[in-house]
Amino acid sequence: MHFIAETSSNGVVERNFTLGEITGVLWSPASGADGAPLVLMGHPGGLHKKAPGLVARAHYYVTTCGFTVAAIDAPGHGDRPRTPQDERWVAALLNARAAGEPLGPIITDYNISLTERAVPEWQATLDALQALPEIGTATPIGYTGMTLASAIGLPLAAVEPRITAAVFGGVFVYDALTEAARQITIPIQFLLPWDDDEIDRQSGLDLYDAFASKDKTLHANPGTHHQVPWHETETSAHFFHRHFTPATT
Amino acid sequence: MHFIAETSSNGVVERNFTLGEITGVLWSPASGADGAPLVLMGHPGGLHKKAPGLVARAHYYVTTCGFTVAAIDAPGHGDRPRTPQDERWVAALLNARAAGEPLGPIITDYNISLTERAVPEWQATLDALQALPEIGTATPIGYTGMTLASAIGLPLAAVEPRITAAVFGGVFVYDALTEAARQITIPIQFLLPWDDDEIDRQSGLDLYDAFASKDKTLHANPGTHHQVPWHETETSAHFFHRHFTPATT
Repeated sequence: MHFIAETSSNGVVERNFTLGEITGVLWSPASGADGAPLVLMGHPGGLHKKAPGLVARAHYYVTTCGFTVAAIDAPGHGDRPRTPQDERWVAALLNARAAGEPLGPIITDYNISLTERAVPEWQATLDALQALPEIGTATPIGYTGMTLASAIGLPLAAVEPRITAAVFGGVFVYDALTEAARQITIPIQFLLPWDDDEIDRQSGLDLYDAFASKDKTLHANPGTHHQVPWHETETSAHFFHRHFTPATT
Repeated sequence: MHFIAETSSNGVVERNFTLGEITGVLWSPASGADGAPLVLMGHPGGLHKKAPGLVARAHYYVTTCGFTVAAIDAPGHGDRPRTPQDERWVAALLNARAAGEPLGPIITDYNISLTERAVPEWQATLDALQALPEIGTATPIGYTGMTLASAIGLPLAAVEPRITAAVFGGVFVYDALTEAARQITIPIQFLLPWDDDEIDRQSGLDLYDAFASKDKTLHANPGTHHQVPWHETETSAHFFHRHFTPATT
């Protein structure tokens, strides 16, 4: 893991890094970072590790909760090149959307391919982060991210025992995700955009139902997956805080 | 409003009161009660204003949020006598449950009758509470309660503009409740027990859908309406706090 730039403002230290082909960023509290809980934050499809909404949530987690937040670009996103096949999928998505044709089959193939590449990348990133003295192997780890970040995050959480709490939602559902949900037993907060015109509401209810977790909460809100209200960021912070902190009662 | 007993422990002042035939209780912070936000708390059917779960939530609101909480017994509950017709409904419910027969028609008739009596009682209680110097007419007011407390609370919130935020859920749905939901525009948090064997899941999803509120969040959790996790109490406190406090951003 090579740190290539560091800035600091408003109590948040931002460090860009590379790890092989992976491009990422780490946000830490300017003070009290040692042993802070770590949240892995994924970005939606078509966006990147420093999308404004993601940065706002990361800063909130750092400044309000004292968490450290790590984000990486998904393959072919942000600072990373697309493969020729990625280019074909993106073109097919744009064409299908313009023509009013179903996006599902294309999203399924593209997301499965991205996930095959991204899961080992998150695991390698986690290895490197835990090798940092300020993080180490004792700090609790969560994962959060909707849409593509959930498509990647569900299979990641299913195979990665270091992740002990996760926030998912707003994701196009295919069989591999349902299978992953059935293997997940950690506490889950699942966001369901109630009025998504691209993702069937019932598929989200069914995916929530599929999680094997005993502690799983579904949060539905009016709007599409582009319109998740800010209070869900606050609620997710309470969710992580609750699971990162040993119970006192 | 006549206060008939006062006790104080762990920072909570508890005052029992009567108002005509209404029997109630007011929990206030031992310090800082003046102008504290007011939460009206209903109890489930068959229970009463000091049911242990209700008292625990009320104490949490008082000690953690600085709210004042008021609860009253529904007609025929707690310290209040049942009418002969109430007795017949209760007997019919017990018989139907024992025989494995549908409870819906009985619950509908009983809850509609209780609501016709309870809504004006809550409004009279609110009048009397606002006449207390420590409450007054400027403090924000919320309502919370599941099952019977939602059956009463929805029609109450539909006609009572002093209530500006509410938490409902776990309620047996009939047409009058759906009609009330369609008239409600205040922020709502709606709790849906995911595995309720007495209340159809889809009816809860449909009721959430019916609220006219732009700010409405559905929270589903595994379990029945007897098993709502404690973190929903914490989340409801954040919900009220968010709506009671003028936005800073």
